[in-house]
Amino acid sequence: MLSIQDYHQKIKSKIDSQNYLQQPIELYEPIRYTMQLGGKRLRPTLTLLACDIFNGNIDEAVNAALGLETFHNFTLLHDDIMDKAPIRRGQPTVYKKWDANRAILSGDTMMVLAYDCLLKSPKDLLFDLFTVFNKVGKEVCEGQQYDMNFETTSSVSIDDYLEMIKLKTAVLIGGSLHVGTIIARASQKHAQLMYNFGEKVGMAFQLQDDLLDAFGDSSLFGKQTGGDIRANKKTYLYLKACEVSNSTDHQRLKDLYTIQDENNQAKVDEVITLFEKYNIEALTKNLMEDFYKEAMSFLQKIGLDDDKEKALIGIADTLMKRNT
Amino acid sequence: MLSIQDYHQKIKSKIDSQNYLQQPIELYEPIRYTMQLGGKRLRPTLTLLACDIFNGNIDEAVNAALGLETFHNFTLLHDDIMDKAPIRRGQPTVYKKWDANRAILSGDTMMVLAYDCLLKSPKDLLFDLFTVFNKVGKEVCEGQQYDMNFETTSSVSIDDYLEMIKLKTAVLIGGSLHVGTIIARASQKHAQLMYNFGEKVGMAFQLQDDLLDAFGDSSLFGKQTGGDIRANKKTYLYLKACEVSNSTDHQRLKDLYTIQDENNQAKVDEVITLFEKYNIEALTKNLMEDFYKEAMSFLQKIGLDDDKEKALIGIADTLMKRNT
Repeated sequence: MLSIQDYHQKIKSKIDSQNYLQQPIELYEPIRYTMQLGGKRLRPTLTLLACDIFNGNIDEAVNAALGLETFHNFTLLHDDIMDKAPIRRGQPTVYKKWDANRAILSGDTMMVLAYDCLLKSPKDLLFDLFTVFNKVGKEVCEGQQYDMNFETTSSVSIDDYLEMIKLKTAVLIGGSLHVGTIIARASQKHAQLMYNFGEKVGMAFQLQDDLLDAFGDSSLFGKQTGGDIRANKKTYLYLKACEVSNSTDHQRLKDLYTIQDENNQAKVDEVITLFEKYNIEALTKNLMEDFYKEAMSFLQKIGLDDDKEKALIGIADTLMKRNT
Repeated sequence: MLSIQDYHQKIKSKIDSQNYLQQPIELYEPIRYTMQLGGKRLRPTLTLLACDIFNGNIDEAVNAALGLETFHNFTLLHDDIMDKAPIRRGQPTVYKKWDANRAILSGDTMMVLAYDCLLKSPKDLLFDLFTVFNKVGKEVCEGQQYDMNFETTSSVSIDDYLEMIKLKTAVLIGGSLHVGTIIARASQKHAQLMYNFGEKVGMAFQLQDDLLDAFGDSSLFGKQTGGDIRANKKTYLYLKACEVSNSTDHQRLKDLYTIQDENNQAKVDEVITLFEKYNIEALTKNLMEDFYKEAMSFLQKIGLDDDKEKALIGIADTLMKRNT
């Protein structure tokens, strides 16, 4: 088996070998910009890892891996318009650097490019691959819609929130492993278990993202911290704080979350103080631990050799303990 | 062979049988709204017609046909945001009825749905179908980008414009026939000739659209006339008028096309008067005739039976002489 660094290198080489700068340049420049910003490139890494774990030929998986990364980046371009996010990976977002129209259309093109990458996979697997990809694609859009809905819904439950992040984030983490497992021609049962493992890890991953958004170091995290609070995003942190706080603090939180000013740093600070008062960081980590355990139980059902199991546990640990 | 009305009916039944109203309703409501607005449903009709002409099973083509219609509607949702178009098919556009975010995300979902429809085609044809579909998808995005570029470019040539409408419109008309021909399992040569025929018809179709935008009856056309002029779109009509007008009128046209006020009806009227002075309608129809002849030469190379050739000529005629 190769190392995570090897997978990274293969993906980087693949991205670097793409000729993104086609005509019209106005369309393709934001695509190259986005693809070369880097980021964790987690999803394609998972695809190659899954393929390798089931003794597949990872050179057969590298196109699909790039497809998943391209799809993920397409969603970021459009999400950043909808969320009015100025910074991504420490750089201006496409809609800020250029404009919303460029971000819409370059995003659309990236979605086609994603399908085009996937199409370079072995032909006899296309039906299965596109089936997974389409399901995940639809669910990611549904998740983003729920996310937007929650901005104007007063009664979001913790379950609603967890369903939203499952759709918006976790299914693509699961899907990335699923795709790699299909390309390795593993059994359907194993492919499903890998998906389930990935989905649960993806839940913990998103909760860690929410924690970093509130408590992270913005210079490491690559985007402004407190963004979720500024945008009144009802994350697990907020919903849990509402649940466990006394009525005065609960009301104060709700009031703070009616402020529409994105530049209100005092609001961010006060919300963080309330989160700290109620140990929200620790409570969130408890829930992450629950998802981690669920992920591990799926992993055990696969019955992999020790070194392979360790590789998957290693990546789950990295995702949960990351600070970027 | 079935009639155009039969194909229409099959497509309508297929659309009516779709359960678009899934959760979250905010995402799927604009999709149902768009798909049920109707319109000409030209592209899926062409797919079924092409399949029927080459003796294919049109029930095998109906999913791909729906995929092409869904893809086309996805592009409309996003184009209408970028073009700030208030009305489409006589009804408010999605971004006007709801908002830009809904139009972005519902559009994205429609693109996935389009791929999902295509995936229901015979499995052994998936590679060929997705290859055509991805190429067309990329080109349509490129065409839209050129279209946007031209808004701020002073030196658009007639050739630039024709290349833009080829990408933005004609390739999807050609692609719709191409897909139907593939599903009928016709030869690659025939599929390519059908594509070429469709692309040329598509050029004439778009020029007719430009004519209708300036000279059409808005109650029939389903959108406000003069929209291209209001938005300073450098269509063939404008570019040809610039080419053939005297220097005073040429300068006046250029000056009128610097006005940014979308509600300036006097500007629209003056541009139309200049178009009329220089016989722009007739000159445009001449060019349409050239494309029509090119289309016919591709058609003859296929060597179809008379009744089948007539069906294709019939649809080309309809597209060129339409007033809606």
